[in-house]
Amino acid sequence: MKDQKTQKPKARLPRGFRDRTAAEIAGERAVLDKIRAVYESYGFEPLETPAFEYTDALGKFLPDVDRPNEGVFSLKDDDDQWMSLRYDLTAPLARYVAENFQHLPKPFRRYAVGNVWRNEKPGPGRFREFTQFDADTVGSNSPSADAELLMMVCDALEAVGLKRGEYIVKINSRKLLDGVLNGALVDPSKRGAVLRAIDKLDRLGEHGVRQLLGEGRKDESGDFTKGAGLQASQITLLMDVVTTPSQTAGVEGLELAWAKTDSSMSLMTSAAEAIGELGKILKILEQQGYLNRVQIDLGTIRGLDYYTGPVFEAQLTFPVKNEAGEEVVFGSVVGGGRYDDLVARFTGQQVPATGISIGVSRLLSALKGRSEAALAPLVVVLALDDPQSSFKMASELRAAGVRAETYVGNKKFGDQLKYADKRGAAIAIIEGSDEKAKGEVTLKDLALGAELAKNIESRADWVKDRPAQVSVSRGELVGKVRDMLARTK
Amino acid sequence: MKDQKTQKPKARLPRGFRDRTAAEIAGERAVLDKIRAVYESYGFEPLETPAFEYTDALGKFLPDVDRPNEGVFSLKDDDDQWMSLRYDLTAPLARYVAENFQHLPKPFRRYAVGNVWRNEKPGPGRFREFTQFDADTVGSNSPSADAELLMMVCDALEAVGLKRGEYIVKINSRKLLDGVLNGALVDPSKRGAVLRAIDKLDRLGEHGVRQLLGEGRKDESGDFTKGAGLQASQITLLMDVVTTPSQTAGVEGLELAWAKTDSSMSLMTSAAEAIGELGKILKILEQQGYLNRVQIDLGTIRGLDYYTGPVFEAQLTFPVKNEAGEEVVFGSVVGGGRYDDLVARFTGQQVPATGISIGVSRLLSALKGRSEAALAPLVVVLALDDPQSSFKMASELRAAGVRAETYVGNKKFGDQLKYADKRGAAIAIIEGSDEKAKGEVTLKDLALGAELAKNIESRADWVKDRPAQVSVSRGELVGKVRDMLARTK
Repeated sequence: MKDQKTQKPKARLPRGFRDRTAAEIAGERAVLDKIRAVYESYGFEPLETPAFEYTDALGKFLPDVDRPNEGVFSLKDDDDQWMSLRYDLTAPLARYVAENFQHLPKPFRRYAVGNVWRNEKPGPGRFREFTQFDADTVGSNSPSADAELLMMVCDALEAVGLKRGEYIVKINSRKLLDGVLNGALVDPSKRGAVLRAIDKLDRLGEHGVRQLLGEGRKDESGDFTKGAGLQASQITLLMDVVTTPSQTAGVEGLELAWAKTDSSMSLMTSAAEAIGELGKILKILEQQGYLNRVQIDLGTIRGLDYYTGPVFEAQLTFPVKNEAGEEVVFGSVVGGGRYDDLVARFTGQQVPATGISIGVSRLLSALKGRSEAALAPLVVVLALDDPQSSFKMASELRAAGVRAETYVGNKKFGDQLKYADKRGAAIAIIEGSDEKAKGEVTLKDLALGAELAKNIESRADWVKDRPAQVSVSRGELVGKVRDMLARTK
Repeated sequence: MKDQKTQKPKARLPRGFRDRTAAEIAGERAVLDKIRAVYESYGFEPLETPAFEYTDALGKFLPDVDRPNEGVFSLKDDDDQWMSLRYDLTAPLARYVAENFQHLPKPFRRYAVGNVWRNEKPGPGRFREFTQFDADTVGSNSPSADAELLMMVCDALEAVGLKRGEYIVKINSRKLLDGVLNGALVDPSKRGAVLRAIDKLDRLGEHGVRQLLGEGRKDESGDFTKGAGLQASQITLLMDVVTTPSQTAGVEGLELAWAKTDSSMSLMTSAAEAIGELGKILKILEQQGYLNRVQIDLGTIRGLDYYTGPVFEAQLTFPVKNEAGEEVVFGSVVGGGRYDDLVARFTGQQVPATGISIGVSRLLSALKGRSEAALAPLVVVLALDDPQSSFKMASELRAAGVRAETYVGNKKFGDQLKYADKRGAAIAIIEGSDEKAKGEVTLKDLALGAELAKNIESRADWVKDRPAQVSVSRGELVGKVRDMLARTK
């Protein structure tokens, strides 16, 4: 920083971060408000934890443990303790519950919305800061708790504009897979690597996952990821299970899916337990009328290491295009599951917990173009001979509920008109000295006059052409603006 | 982290960070919505920049430059470049404007709300993560731009519930003070230290500031802060100006305040310029009817180094109490000013800019107890013999707009009732096998029965006592709940 005075910093963002402008922010706000309304209607209440936690409190549950810094942004506090930015909203919840257990109603049901940060390799559509909207029920091992979250997330997805059939909720259980891993005699130390590999099935396809389960895989960039080192027979067994075609849910569907896998394992305790649990969840969904939105998928894993039982995700069923208009493989927009051991990390005492998380940033990009939330139409009051009068007009319009701004720059008429146009204003209000003398103001309909205005440099030219505009007495201003806005809607 | 398996992490937050629960979050949301509505009505549009910026892009403008890490949280990215968490929303805006200058309407008017982080010594009510709500106008050197922000912030403060007279907006100009510094022959290298010292007038009082302007000051903890090293005569001159009694605003008030200072300096260019600028701002405020909310205060400095002209702050005029019920010196809830050089750091080209920032977290703590935003009343449907039926009842209630949750834990009746009570529910819905056989459900008014319920362990005891409760046919559930809620409001 010594050369700060001589060398100018470059105005640029760190990789993987981005700015967001009005339309996107308004869209996100609308989506968050709708999800919030659904979650609150179910009796979930908000909780906010800070961006930072002590690193040891967050734990190491991210899938990409091979990366430097292990996926989180960390720094040392003054007192030499390591702090990290939260990489999800679940780990901080576990810390909160452990810290406040005595005082909480049990089950403790909270929602949380906020940014999380991942110190990962950024890529197209893959950012290092993004928004999640979580709901969790802590302190209940009942399948009711899981089923409720699944129903609620269906309601939320429909509230934000997805039609039934445009999304599918997939469920599976880590315990099922643990049964298979046991049956295949996979060394427990390899469990993490195996789960991470299978979790990439959507992205890498069957061949890529087989490589990651075996010796390893070289990606397009030439980087090599070491594999889990399973034997060929183990890989075959595993892949048979996880690629079992998805089944429409229902307990029968579940049992059917399981029967299609190598049946020699079907009696293993962990797998039997999983089927029992999933069956209870499915039964509730069935009776409450949600079954048609849910699918058993033995390949659903979820990347985070802390899940202990049922896992959930929701995917969109319609094609999603990227900014270049190309159809893309669009991952899940919802993820979740049971994490019964996370609070016990702190307390030593198991506290059953289950949660679901909506990837708001992903969901928004998929919804792009279908539910644009926009700000109300804008009126720009030009500041000509009497800027004070412009402030007064804008104030009157606002008092009448119209979004109105006064031009506060110092350019001349033509540039002010261009400004109003660039701002996307619906109407420009003009009170020049001529108008003022007559006690009038001019309302220019910019929606109509936009094209023309681009070529106008001076007031005189513009007056000659007289595009869509009307002069009214000063007293009629508010009423006429309202009329004009009503017409342009 | 090697001993993670043997040693449990302690569930605790890093110093200076805190969790926030439902009531506070609902309160903040209400305040943010109100400010947002005012800002949008003025034609400001939202912009969000990420939490991280490159450290060189943020610059060094924080007051406490003596602290380690210089007040910001910083870490090295993979590519060895330093990144920092934003310490305010203004520095990132300057980066954004420099990066996107060509495409922006000028003036560019945006609002931004979000968390900022300061790596400072935490203290009572002093956190290292807090919320700011900013509005800025970039690309206009017109006093209209400053005046508009001041009027808008008055509207916003009143929208969130402050009565006129409960706050006062103070204005001053850095240029006035620069005039005085010139007149007192203060070495320009000492300007930063002098401004930081004067900015502490509210907190440290006159004596403390004199020490900081001179040799230095030892605080209560024994820490010594080196002073600016001014001579006694320079200190006297400066203190005379900054302690000039505040004046009701108006150009006359301004000139009067200035006249009361040592008049030998009154003709210096910088000071004369400042008076001219402030005069124009005050004139607009006067004509728009905002003058009674504004005060000239020659001691108003603002801590941040990047201000170049007018500076603003708003203070509350009523006593604020801390959590222990003691009256506290409550600093400003709004700060701002002109920062004409911030974009030029990147581009070399001056872009005039002015902004105002509401310290939302501070404002909220001052408003505590006066405008509690609460969630709608809650109904808890107990899950007894037929949990499926409980889910259906909750779903029906939600469809009717009632916030309703199903109990999803696995405790017995008495504990479920305690849970409903602890959740602050207004009504508990009970459908035991007896009720079900009769096609009835029982509605228990918890607001009335709360005290009694605490001592009930079993269903039988409770039925015997029959506190405020009513049995209705299953079909009447929704209607009766609504009646009961209407009564308890």
